[in-house]
Amino acid sequence: MSKHATLVFSRHGESEWNVANIFTGWVDVDLSEKGLGEAKGAGELLKGEGLQIDVAFTSYLKRAIKTCNLALEGADQLYVPINKSWRLNERMYGGLTGLDKKETVVKHGAEQVQIWRRSFDIPPPALEKESKYHPCHEAKYAALDPKDLPDTECLKDTIARVMPYWESAIAPELKAGKTVFVTVFVAAHGNSIRAIVKMIEGISDDVIPGLEIPTGTPLVYELDADLKPIASPLAVEPLKFGRYLGDAEKIKAAAEAVKNQTKVG
Amino acid sequence: MSKHATLVFSRHGESEWNVANIFTGWVDVDLSEKGLGEAKGAGELLKGEGLQIDVAFTSYLKRAIKTCNLALEGADQLYVPINKSWRLNERMYGGLTGLDKKETVVKHGAEQVQIWRRSFDIPPPALEKESKYHPCHEAKYAALDPKDLPDTECLKDTIARVMPYWESAIAPELKAGKTVFVTVFVAAHGNSIRAIVKMIEGISDDVIPGLEIPTGTPLVYELDADLKPIASPLAVEPLKFGRYLGDAEKIKAAAEAVKNQTKVG
Repeated sequence: MSKHATLVFSRHGESEWNVANIFTGWVDVDLSEKGLGEAKGAGELLKGEGLQIDVAFTSYLKRAIKTCNLALEGADQLYVPINKSWRLNERMYGGLTGLDKKETVVKHGAEQVQIWRRSFDIPPPALEKESKYHPCHEAKYAALDPKDLPDTECLKDTIARVMPYWESAIAPELKAGKTVFVTVFVAAHGNSIRAIVKMIEGISDDVIPGLEIPTGTPLVYELDADLKPIASPLAVEPLKFGRYLGDAEKIKAAAEAVKNQTKVG
Repeated sequence: MSKHATLVFSRHGESEWNVANIFTGWVDVDLSEKGLGEAKGAGELLKGEGLQIDVAFTSYLKRAIKTCNLALEGADQLYVPINKSWRLNERMYGGLTGLDKKETVVKHGAEQVQIWRRSFDIPPPALEKESKYHPCHEAKYAALDPKDLPDTECLKDTIARVMPYWESAIAPELKAGKTVFVTVFVAAHGNSIRAIVKMIEGISDDVIPGLEIPTGTPLVYELDADLKPIASPLAVEPLKFGRYLGDAEKIKAAAEAVKNQTKVG
Protein backbone atom coordinates (compact mmCIF):
# COMPACT_ATOMS: atom_id res chain seq x y z
CA MET A 1 0.00 0.00 0.00
CA SER A 2 1.50 3.30 -1.00
CA LYS A 3 0.39 6.65 0.29
CA HIS A 4 -2.07 8.47 -1.92
CA ALA A 5 -3.88 10.89 0.36
CA THR A 6 -3.95 12.40 3.85
CA LEU A 7 -7.15 12.87 5.82
CA VAL A 8 -7.06 15.08 8.90
CA PHE A 9 -9.86 15.44 11.43
CA SER A 10 -10.22 18.18 13.97
CA ARG A 11 -12.92 18.04 16.61
CA HIS A 12 -14.13 21.55 17.46
CA GLY A 13 -12.66 23.20 20.52
CA GLU A 14 -14.46 23.89 23.79
CA SER A 15 -17.91 25.47 23.35
CA GLU A 16 -19.87 27.73 25.70
CA TRP A 17 -22.16 24.81 26.54
CA ASN A 18 -19.20 22.51 27.21
CA VAL A 19 -18.27 25.05 29.89
CA ALA A 20 -21.86 25.21 31.17
CA ASN A 21 -22.04 21.37 31.05
CA ILE A 22 -25.24 21.30 28.96
CA PHE A 23 -26.21 18.70 26.32
CA THR A 24 -25.77 20.54 23.02
CA GLY A 25 -26.29 18.39 19.91
CA TRP A 26 -27.61 20.60 17.10
CA VAL A 27 -27.93 23.80 19.15
CA ASP A 28 -25.70 26.39 17.48
CA VAL A 29 -23.62 27.54 20.44
CA ASP A 30 -20.38 29.45 20.03
CA LEU A 31 -16.83 28.43 20.94
CA SER A 32 -15.52 29.59 24.32
CA GLU A 33 -12.34 31.71 24.49
CA LYS A 34 -10.44 28.49 25.18
CA GLY A 35 -12.12 26.86 22.17
CA LEU A 36 -11.03 29.70 19.87
CA GLY A 37 -7.45 29.18 21.03
CA GLU A 38 -7.69 25.40 20.55
CA ALA A 39 -8.85 25.90 16.96
CA LYS A 40 -5.96 28.20 16.12
CA GLY A 41 -3.58 25.81 17.89
CA ALA A 42 -4.86 22.95 15.71
CA GLY A 43 -3.99 25.05 12.66
CA GLU A 44 -0.50 25.71 13.96
CA LEU A 45 -0.02 21.95 14.44
CA LEU A 46 -1.09 21.39 10.80
CA LYS A 47 1.40 24.03 9.70
CA GLY A 48 4.15 22.53 11.87
CA GLU A 49 3.51 19.18 10.19
CA GLY A 50 3.91 20.85 6.77
CA LEU A 51 0.41 19.83 5.67
CA GLN A 52 -0.88 21.71 2.61
CA ILE A 53 -4.65 21.26 2.61
CA ASP A 54 -6.47 20.92 -0.72
CA VAL A 55 -10.05 21.04 0.51
CA ALA A 56 -11.83 21.27 3.87
CA PHE A 57 -15.20 20.05 5.13
CA THR A 58 -17.25 21.19 8.08
CA SER A 59 -20.78 21.12 9.49
CA TYR A 60 -23.60 23.71 9.62
CA LEU A 61 -22.79 24.49 13.27
CA LYS A 62 -20.72 27.56 14.09
CA ARG A 63 -18.45 25.83 16.62
CA ALA A 64 -17.17 23.55 13.83
CA ILE A 65 -17.21 26.25 11.12
CA LYS A 66 -15.19 28.63 13.31
CA THR A 67 -12.81 25.78 14.20
CA CYS A 68 -12.37 25.19 10.47
CA ASN A 69 -11.81 28.89 9.71
CA LEU A 70 -9.43 29.43 12.64
CA ALA A 71 -7.48 26.24 11.96
CA LEU A 72 -7.01 27.27 8.32
CA GLU A 73 -5.95 30.73 9.53
CA GLY A 74 -3.52 29.17 12.03
CA ALA A 75 -2.12 27.07 9.18
CA ASP A 76 -1.90 30.22 6.99
CA GLN A 77 -4.19 28.54 4.42
CA LEU A 78 -7.40 30.59 4.61
CA TYR A 79 -7.79 30.40 0.81
CA VAL A 80 -8.56 26.64 0.99
CA PRO A 81 -12.12 25.86 -0.23
CA ILE A 82 -14.51 24.79 2.53
CA ASN A 83 -17.62 22.66 2.01
CA LYS A 84 -20.30 22.86 4.68
CA SER A 85 -22.92 20.18 5.25
CA TRP A 86 -25.59 19.51 7.88
CA ARG A 87 -24.61 15.83 7.53
CA LEU A 88 -21.40 16.55 9.49
CA ASN A 89 -23.36 18.04 12.42
CA GLU A 90 -22.98 16.65 15.93
CA ARG A 91 -25.28 13.83 17.03
CA MET A 92 -28.80 15.21 17.61
CA TYR A 93 -29.37 14.81 21.34
CA GLY A 94 -33.19 14.66 21.21
CA GLY A 95 -34.98 15.47 24.46
CA LEU A 96 -31.68 15.87 26.33
CA THR A 97 -30.87 18.98 24.27
CA GLY A 98 -30.48 22.02 26.50
CA LEU A 99 -30.45 20.03 29.76
CA ASP A 100 -27.74 20.30 32.40
CA LYS A 101 -25.66 17.12 32.27
CA LYS A 102 -25.33 16.59 36.04
CA GLU A 103 -28.99 17.43 36.74
CA THR A 104 -29.95 14.86 34.12
CA VAL A 105 -27.86 12.27 35.97
CA VAL A 106 -29.57 13.14 39.27
CA LYS A 107 -32.99 12.90 37.63
CA HIS A 108 -32.59 9.79 35.44
CA GLY A 109 -29.68 8.01 37.11
CA ALA A 110 -26.10 7.67 35.91
CA GLU A 111 -26.78 4.34 34.22
CA GLN A 112 -29.63 5.65 32.04
CA VAL A 113 -27.65 8.75 31.06
CA GLN A 114 -24.62 6.62 30.21
CA ILE A 115 -26.87 4.50 27.96
CA TRP A 116 -28.16 7.61 26.16
CA ARG A 117 -24.67 9.05 25.83
CA ARG A 118 -22.64 6.02 24.95
CA SER A 119 -24.80 3.18 23.64
CA PHE A 120 -24.50 2.51 19.92
CA ASP A 121 -28.16 2.16 19.03
CA ILE A 122 -30.39 3.50 21.85
CA PRO A 123 -31.41 7.13 21.18
CA PRO A 124 -32.57 9.55 23.89
CA PRO A 125 -36.30 10.46 23.86
CA ALA A 126 -37.36 12.54 20.84
CA LEU A 127 -37.17 16.35 20.97
CA GLU A 128 -40.64 17.81 20.48
CA LYS A 129 -41.10 19.92 17.34
CA GLU A 130 -42.46 22.70 19.59
CA SER A 131 -39.12 22.95 21.42
CA LYS A 132 -37.15 26.12 20.59
CA TYR A 133 -34.16 23.82 20.11
CA HIS A 134 -35.76 21.79 17.30
CA PRO A 135 -33.89 22.36 14.00
CA CYS A 136 -37.18 22.74 12.10
CA HIS A 137 -37.28 26.35 13.38
CA GLU A 138 -33.92 27.31 11.86
CA ALA A 139 -33.50 29.08 8.48
CA LYS A 140 -30.36 27.10 7.67
CA TYR A 141 -32.30 23.82 7.43
CA ALA A 142 -35.22 25.33 5.47
CA ALA A 143 -34.00 23.86 2.16
CA LEU A 144 -33.81 20.31 3.58
CA ASP A 145 -36.46 17.63 3.21
CA PRO A 146 -38.21 17.77 6.63
CA LYS A 147 -37.81 13.95 6.78
CA ASP A 148 -34.05 14.46 7.02
CA LEU A 149 -34.32 16.56 10.19
CA PRO A 150 -33.88 14.24 13.19
CA ASP A 151 -35.92 14.49 16.41
CA THR A 152 -33.23 12.42 18.17
CA GLU A 153 -30.27 10.24 17.22
CA CYS A 154 -28.20 7.38 18.58
CA LEU A 155 -24.67 7.04 17.21
CA LYS A 156 -25.96 4.50 14.68
CA ASP A 157 -28.38 7.12 13.32
CA THR A 158 -25.61 9.71 13.14
CA ILE A 159 -23.46 7.27 11.16
CA ALA A 160 -26.37 6.64 8.78
CA ARG A 161 -26.62 10.34 7.85
CA VAL A 162 -22.87 11.08 7.85
CA MET A 163 -21.85 8.26 5.51
CA PRO A 164 -23.79 9.36 2.40
CA TYR A 165 -21.80 12.61 2.61
CA TRP A 166 -18.55 10.70 3.01
CA GLU A 167 -19.39 8.69 -0.12
CA SER A 168 -20.66 11.57 -2.27
CA ALA A 169 -18.39 14.44 -1.20
CA ILE A 170 -15.34 13.57 0.92
CA ALA A 171 -14.18 10.24 -0.58
CA PRO A 172 -14.26 11.58 -4.18
CA GLU A 173 -11.93 14.46 -3.17
CA LEU A 174 -9.55 11.98 -1.54
CA LYS A 175 -9.60 9.72 -4.60
CA ALA A 176 -9.26 12.55 -7.13
CA GLY A 177 -5.72 13.43 -6.15
CA LYS A 178 -5.60 17.10 -7.19
CA THR A 179 -2.05 17.23 -5.90
CA VAL A 180 0.56 14.45 -5.65
CA PHE A 181 -0.70 13.65 -2.14
CA VAL A 182 -4.16 15.16 -1.77
CA THR A 183 -4.85 16.43 1.75
CA VAL A 184 -8.41 16.78 3.07
CA PHE A 185 -9.33 18.47 6.36
CA VAL A 186 -12.58 17.73 8.24
CA ALA A 187 -13.46 20.06 11.15
CA ALA A 188 -16.50 18.54 12.83
CA HIS A 189 -17.90 17.02 16.02
CA GLY A 190 -17.19 14.08 18.33
CA ASN A 191 -19.87 11.88 16.80
CA SER A 192 -19.67 12.83 13.13
CA ILE A 193 -15.90 12.16 13.35
CA ARG A 194 -16.58 8.85 15.15
CA ALA A 195 -18.81 7.88 12.21
CA ILE A 196 -16.01 8.17 9.67
CA VAL A 197 -13.24 6.89 11.97
CA LYS A 198 -15.32 3.76 12.71
CA MET A 199 -15.45 2.93 9.02
CA ILE A 200 -11.77 3.70 8.32
CA GLU A 201 -10.43 1.83 11.37
CA GLY A 202 -13.03 -0.98 11.28
CA ILE A 203 -13.92 -0.34 14.95
CA SER A 204 -16.80 -2.44 16.29
CA ASP A 205 -20.23 -1.12 17.34
CA ASP A 206 -19.54 -1.70 21.04
CA VAL A 207 -16.13 0.00 21.08
CA ILE A 208 -16.87 3.10 18.98
CA PRO A 209 -19.18 4.87 21.47
CA GLY A 210 -16.30 4.93 24.00
CA LEU A 211 -13.74 6.44 21.62
CA GLU A 212 -12.86 9.85 23.03
CA ILE A 213 -11.48 12.21 20.42
CA PRO A 214 -9.70 15.11 22.12
CA THR A 215 -10.41 18.70 20.97
CA GLY A 216 -7.79 20.90 19.35
CA THR A 217 -5.59 17.95 18.37
CA PRO A 218 -5.70 17.03 14.68
CA LEU A 219 -6.11 13.30 13.96
CA VAL A 220 -4.17 12.28 10.84
CA TYR A 221 -4.74 9.30 8.51
CA GLU A 222 -2.62 8.33 5.56
CA LEU A 223 -4.65 6.47 2.94
CA ASP A 224 -3.82 4.50 -0.18
CA ALA A 225 -5.53 4.99 -3.55
CA ASP A 226 -8.45 2.75 -2.42
CA LEU A 227 -8.73 4.90 0.74
CA LYS A 228 -7.52 2.02 2.92
CA PRO A 229 -5.61 3.41 5.92
CA ILE A 230 -1.88 2.84 6.33
CA ALA A 231 -0.88 1.71 9.84
CA SER A 232 0.90 4.30 11.98
CA PRO A 233 3.38 3.38 14.74
CA LEU A 234 2.12 6.50 16.53
CA ALA A 235 -1.53 5.34 16.71
CA VAL A 236 -2.94 5.08 20.25
CA GLU A 237 -5.39 2.26 21.23
CA PRO A 238 -8.09 1.64 20.11
CA LEU A 239 -6.80 3.35 16.95
CA LYS A 240 -4.43 1.40 14.71
CA PHE A 241 -4.06 3.84 11.87
CA GLY A 242 -4.75 7.39 13.07
CA ARG A 243 -2.17 9.49 14.89
CA TYR A 244 -2.77 12.69 16.82
CA LEU A 245 -0.64 15.77 16.33
CA GLY A 246 0.54 17.57 19.45
CA ASP A 247 1.63 16.79 22.96
CA ALA A 248 0.88 13.18 24.04
CA GLU A 249 0.09 14.02 27.67
CA LYS A 250 -2.30 16.82 26.67
CA ILE A 251 -4.11 14.44 24.30
CA LYS A 252 -4.66 11.90 27.07
CA ALA A 253 -5.81 14.54 29.56
CA ALA A 254 -8.23 16.05 27.03
CA ALA A 255 -9.86 12.65 26.39
CA GLU A 256 -10.23 12.04 30.14
CA ALA A 257 -11.85 15.48 30.59
CA VAL A 258 -14.59 14.62 28.07
CA LYS A 259 -15.31 11.34 29.89
CA ASN A 260 -15.73 13.10 33.24
CA GLN A 261 -18.49 15.51 32.19
CA THR A 262 -21.39 13.48 33.60
CA LYS A 263 -19.64 12.44 36.80
CA VAL A 264 -21.64 13.85 39.66
CA GLY A 265 -19.08 15.62 41.86
CA MET B 1 -38.70 45.00 -14.07
CA SER B 2 -39.51 42.88 -11.07
CA LYS B 3 -37.06 41.93 -8.39
CA HIS B 4 -35.47 38.52 -8.81
CA ALA B 5 -32.23 38.66 -6.84
CA THR B 6 -30.19 40.73 -4.41
CA LEU B 7 -26.44 41.23 -4.77
CA VAL B 8 -24.52 42.65 -1.82
CA PHE B 9 -20.89 43.76 -1.88
CA SER B 10 -18.68 44.35 1.09
CA ARG B 11 -15.24 45.86 0.71
CA HIS B 12 -12.88 44.43 3.32
CA GLY B 13 -12.29 46.47 6.45
CA GLU B 14 -9.10 48.31 7.35
CA SER B 15 -5.94 46.23 6.91
CA GLU B 16 -2.59 46.46 8.69
CA TRP B 17 -1.06 48.03 5.58
CA ASN B 18 -3.92 50.53 5.29
CA VAL B 19 -2.79 51.68 8.74
CA ALA B 20 0.88 51.68 7.70
CA ASN B 21 -0.08 53.49 4.43
CA ILE B 22 1.68 50.96 2.17
CA PHE B 23 0.59 49.85 -1.33
CA THR B 24 -0.76 46.33 -0.81
CA GLY B 25 -2.32 44.76 -3.90
CA TRP B 26 -1.85 40.97 -3.70
CA VAL B 27 0.22 40.94 -0.49
CA ASP B 28 -1.72 38.85 2.01
CA VAL B 29 -1.83 41.26 4.97
CA ASP B 30 -4.24 40.82 7.84
CA LEU B 31 -7.12 43.05 8.94
CA SER B 32 -6.39 45.57 11.70
CA GLU B 33 -8.43 45.49 14.94
CA LYS B 34 -10.62 48.21 13.42
CA GLY B 35 -11.01 46.13 10.25
CA LEU B 36 -12.17 43.09 12.24
CA GLY B 37 -14.84 45.27 13.86
CA GLU B 38 -15.89 46.75 10.50
CA ALA B 39 -16.39 43.25 9.09
CA LYS B 40 -18.58 42.16 11.97
CA GLY B 41 -20.46 45.46 11.74
CA ALA B 42 -21.15 44.81 8.05
CA GLY B 43 -22.70 41.49 9.05
CA GLU B 44 -24.89 43.15 11.64
CA LEU B 45 -26.11 45.58 8.96
CA LEU B 46 -27.01 42.61 6.72
CA LYS B 47 -28.90 41.04 9.60
CA GLY B 48 -30.66 44.32 10.41
CA GLU B 49 -31.77 44.48 6.77
CA GLY B 50 -33.22 40.95 7.08
CA LEU B 51 -31.02 39.61 4.28
CA GLN B 52 -30.80 35.80 4.13
CA ILE B 53 -27.72 35.01 2.05
CA ASP B 54 -27.78 31.98 -0.25
CA VAL B 55 -24.15 31.95 -1.33
CA ALA B 56 -21.06 34.08 -0.75
CA PHE B 57 -17.95 34.81 -2.81
CA THR B 58 -14.57 36.10 -1.74
CA SER B 59 -10.96 36.33 -2.91
CA TYR B 60 -7.80 34.37 -2.03
CA LEU B 61 -6.63 37.16 0.29
CA LYS B 62 -7.18 36.82 4.02
CA ARG B 63 -8.41 40.39 4.55
CA ALA B 64 -11.39 39.63 2.27
CA ILE B 65 -11.86 36.02 3.48
CA LYS B 66 -11.92 37.14 7.12
CA THR B 67 -14.31 39.97 6.20
CA CYS B 68 -16.55 37.35 4.58
CA ASN B 69 -16.34 34.99 7.57
CA LEU B 70 -16.88 37.74 10.15
CA ALA B 71 -19.73 39.35 8.19
CA LEU B 72 -21.50 35.97 7.93
CA GLU B 73 -20.90 35.49 11.65
CA GLY B 74 -22.26 38.97 12.40
CA ALA B 75 -25.31 38.10 10.29
CA ASP B 76 -25.63 34.78 12.16
CA GLN B 77 -25.31 32.91 8.84
CA LEU B 78 -21.94 31.15 9.12
CA TYR B 79 -23.37 28.04 7.42
CA VAL B 80 -23.67 29.88 4.08
CA PRO B 81 -21.42 28.31 1.40
CA ILE B 82 -18.42 30.47 0.42
CA ASN B 83 -16.62 30.29 -2.90
CA LYS B 84 -13.07 31.63 -3.00
CA SER B 85 -11.31 32.77 -6.18
CA TRP B 86 -8.04 34.53 -6.97
CA ARG B 87 -10.04 36.38 -9.65
CA LEU B 88 -11.67 38.49 -6.91
CA ASN B 89 -8.27 39.59 -5.54
CA GLU B 90 -7.40 43.28 -5.24
CA ARG B 91 -5.72 45.00 -8.19
CA MET B 92 -2.11 43.83 -8.44
CA TYR B 93 -0.05 46.92 -7.70
CA GLY B 94 3.10 45.87 -9.60
CA GLY B 95 6.32 47.61 -8.60
CA LEU B 96 4.47 49.83 -6.11
CA THR B 97 3.70 46.79 -3.94
CA GLY B 98 5.22 47.16 -0.48
CA LEU B 99 6.13 50.85 -0.94
CA ASP B 100 5.07 53.60 1.46
CA LYS B 101 2.38 55.69 -0.26
CA LYS B 102 3.64 59.11 0.82
CA GLU B 103 7.31 58.27 0.10
CA THR B 104 6.23 57.18 -3.37
CA VAL B 105 4.58 60.58 -3.87
CA VAL B 106 7.76 62.37 -2.76
CA LYS B 107 9.87 60.24 -5.11
CA HIS B 108 7.70 60.15 -8.24
CA GLY B 109 5.46 63.18 -7.77
CA ALA B 110 1.79 63.36 -6.84
CA GLU B 111 0.68 63.46 -10.47
CA GLN B 112 2.50 60.27 -11.48
CA VAL B 113 1.22 58.41 -8.38
CA GLN B 114 -2.31 59.62 -9.07
CA ILE B 115 -2.01 58.23 -12.62
CA TRP B 116 -0.87 54.85 -11.29
CA ARG B 117 -3.58 54.78 -8.66
CA ARG B 118 -6.53 56.16 -10.53
CA SER B 119 -6.07 55.94 -14.30
CA PHE B 120 -8.17 53.32 -16.05
CA ASP B 121 -5.57 51.79 -18.30
CA ILE B 122 -2.04 52.79 -17.21
CA PRO B 123 -0.50 50.14 -14.95
CA PRO B 124 2.38 50.79 -12.53
CA PRO B 125 5.78 49.30 -13.49
CA ALA B 126 5.88 45.48 -13.34
CA LEU B 127 6.84 43.72 -10.12
CA GLU B 128 9.98 41.63 -10.67
CA LYS B 129 9.51 37.88 -10.29
CA GLU B 130 12.43 37.93 -7.83
CA SER B 131 10.51 40.19 -5.45
CA LYS B 132 9.34 38.45 -2.27
CA TYR B 133 5.94 40.03 -2.96
CA HIS B 134 5.46 38.33 -6.35
CA PRO B 135 2.53 35.85 -6.22
CA CYS B 136 4.59 33.22 -8.08
CA HIS B 137 6.23 32.39 -4.72
CA GLU B 138 2.97 31.55 -2.96
CA ALA B 139 1.57 28.03 -2.54
CA LYS B 140 -2.01 29.21 -3.02
CA TYR B 141 -1.36 30.16 -6.65
CA ALA B 142 0.64 26.99 -7.47
CA ALA B 143 -2.29 25.36 -9.31
CA LEU B 144 -2.77 28.38 -11.61
CA ASP B 145 -1.42 28.73 -15.12
CA PRO B 146 1.65 30.97 -14.56
CA LYS B 147 0.37 33.14 -17.44
CA ASP B 148 -2.61 34.09 -15.26
CA LEU B 149 -0.39 35.56 -12.52
CA PRO B 150 -0.05 39.31 -13.12
CA ASP B 151 3.20 41.27 -12.71
CA THR B 152 1.16 44.48 -12.54
CA GLU B 153 -2.38 45.63 -13.33
CA CYS B 154 -4.30 48.76 -14.23
CA LEU B 155 -8.03 48.76 -13.39
CA LYS B 156 -8.76 47.63 -16.96
CA ASP B 157 -6.59 44.54 -16.40
CA THR B 158 -8.35 43.82 -13.08
CA ILE B 159 -11.72 44.01 -14.82
CA ALA B 160 -10.49 41.61 -17.51
CA ARG B 161 -9.69 38.91 -14.94
CA VAL B 162 -12.67 39.53 -12.63
CA MET B 163 -15.37 39.36 -15.32
CA PRO B 164 -14.83 35.72 -16.42
CA TYR B 165 -15.53 34.76 -12.78
CA TRP B 166 -18.63 36.94 -12.71
CA GLU B 167 -19.88 35.19 -15.86
CA SER B 168 -18.99 31.64 -14.85
CA ALA B 169 -19.64 31.64 -11.10
CA ILE B 170 -21.52 34.65 -9.66
CA ALA B 171 -24.08 35.45 -12.38
CA PRO B 172 -25.28 31.79 -12.62
CA GLU B 173 -26.04 31.78 -8.87
CA LEU B 174 -28.00 35.03 -9.21
CA LYS B 175 -29.93 33.66 -12.18
CA ALA B 176 -30.59 30.24 -10.63
CA GLY B 177 -32.89 31.58 -7.93
CA LYS B 178 -32.49 28.88 -5.26
CA THR B 179 -34.90 30.83 -3.08
CA VAL B 180 -37.76 33.16 -4.10
CA PHE B 181 -35.33 36.08 -4.05
CA VAL B 182 -31.81 34.69 -4.26
CA THR B 183 -29.26 36.72 -2.29
CA VAL B 184 -25.55 36.65 -3.13
CA PHE B 185 -22.81 38.22 -1.00
CA VAL B 186 -19.41 39.25 -2.41
CA ALA B 187 -16.71 40.20 0.13
CA ALA B 188 -13.79 41.54 -1.89
CA HIS B 189 -11.57 44.53 -2.62
CA GLY B 190 -11.93 48.12 -3.85
CA ASN B 191 -10.94 47.27 -7.41
CA SER B 192 -12.51 43.84 -7.86
CA ILE B 193 -15.79 45.36 -6.63
CA ARG B 194 -15.32 48.34 -8.99
CA ALA B 195 -15.01 45.84 -11.85
CA ILE B 196 -18.47 44.37 -11.25
CA VAL B 197 -20.13 47.65 -10.21
CA LYS B 198 -18.87 49.28 -13.44
CA MET B 199 -20.66 46.66 -15.49
CA ILE B 200 -23.88 46.68 -13.46
CA GLU B 201 -24.15 50.48 -13.30
CA GLY B 202 -22.78 51.16 -16.78
CA ILE B 203 -20.18 53.56 -15.34
CA SER B 204 -17.69 54.97 -17.88
CA ASP B 205 -13.94 54.23 -17.99
CA ASP B 206 -13.02 57.73 -16.82
CA VAL B 207 -15.43 57.82 -13.86
CA ILE B 208 -14.92 54.31 -12.43
CA PRO B 209 -11.34 54.83 -11.14
CA GLY B 210 -12.62 57.62 -8.88
CA LEU B 211 -15.45 55.62 -7.35
CA GLU B 212 -14.62 55.27 -3.65
CA ILE B 213 -16.33 52.31 -2.02
CA PRO B 214 -16.30 52.70 1.76
CA THR B 215 -15.23 49.77 3.94
CA GLY B 216 -17.57 48.04 6.36
CA THR B 217 -20.70 49.33 4.57
CA PRO B 218 -22.52 46.74 2.46
CA LEU B 219 -23.51 47.93 -1.04
CA VAL B 220 -26.86 46.43 -2.10
CA TYR B 221 -28.23 45.88 -5.62
CA GLU B 222 -31.64 44.55 -6.51
CA LEU B 223 -31.62 42.79 -9.88
CA ASP B 224 -34.28 41.48 -12.23
CA ALA B 225 -34.21 38.02 -13.82
CA ASP B 226 -31.84 39.30 -16.55
CA LEU B 227 -29.58 40.70 -13.81
CA LYS B 228 -30.42 44.28 -14.82
CA PRO B 229 -30.30 46.55 -11.75
CA ILE B 230 -33.43 48.17 -10.37
CA ALA B 231 -33.01 51.89 -9.60
CA SER B 232 -32.83 52.81 -5.90
CA PRO B 233 -33.93 56.21 -4.53
CA LEU B 234 -31.20 55.72 -1.92
CA ALA B 235 -28.36 55.47 -4.45
CA VAL B 236 -25.60 58.09 -4.02
CA GLU B 237 -23.88 59.66 -7.09
CA PRO B 238 -22.24 58.37 -9.23
CA LEU B 239 -24.30 55.26 -8.38
CA LYS B 240 -27.87 55.07 -9.70
CA PHE B 241 -28.79 51.59 -8.56
CA GLY B 242 -26.69 50.59 -5.54
CA ARG B 243 -27.48 51.71 -2.02
CA TYR B 244 -25.21 51.50 1.00
CA LEU B 245 -26.39 50.09 4.31
CA GLY B 246 -25.51 52.06 7.42
CA ASP B 247 -25.03 55.63 8.53
CA ALA B 248 -24.89 58.15 5.61
CA GLU B 249 -22.31 60.46 7.24
CA LYS B 250 -20.01 57.57 8.09
CA ILE B 251 -20.20 56.35 4.49
CA LYS B 252 -19.17 59.77 3.15
CA ALA B 253 -16.33 60.11 5.68
CA ALA B 254 -15.03 56.63 4.90
CA ALA B 255 -14.88 57.40 1.16
CA GLU B 256 -13.00 60.68 1.85
CA ALA B 257 -10.49 58.85 4.06
CA VAL B 258 -9.56 56.48 1.21
CA LYS B 259 -9.01 59.46 -1.13
CA ASN B 260 -6.66 61.19 1.33
CA GLN B 261 -4.16 58.35 1.68
CA THR B 262 -1.62 59.74 -0.77
CA LYS B 263 -1.94 63.37 0.29
CA VAL B 264 1.47 64.45 1.56
CA GLY B 265 1.00 65.93 5.03
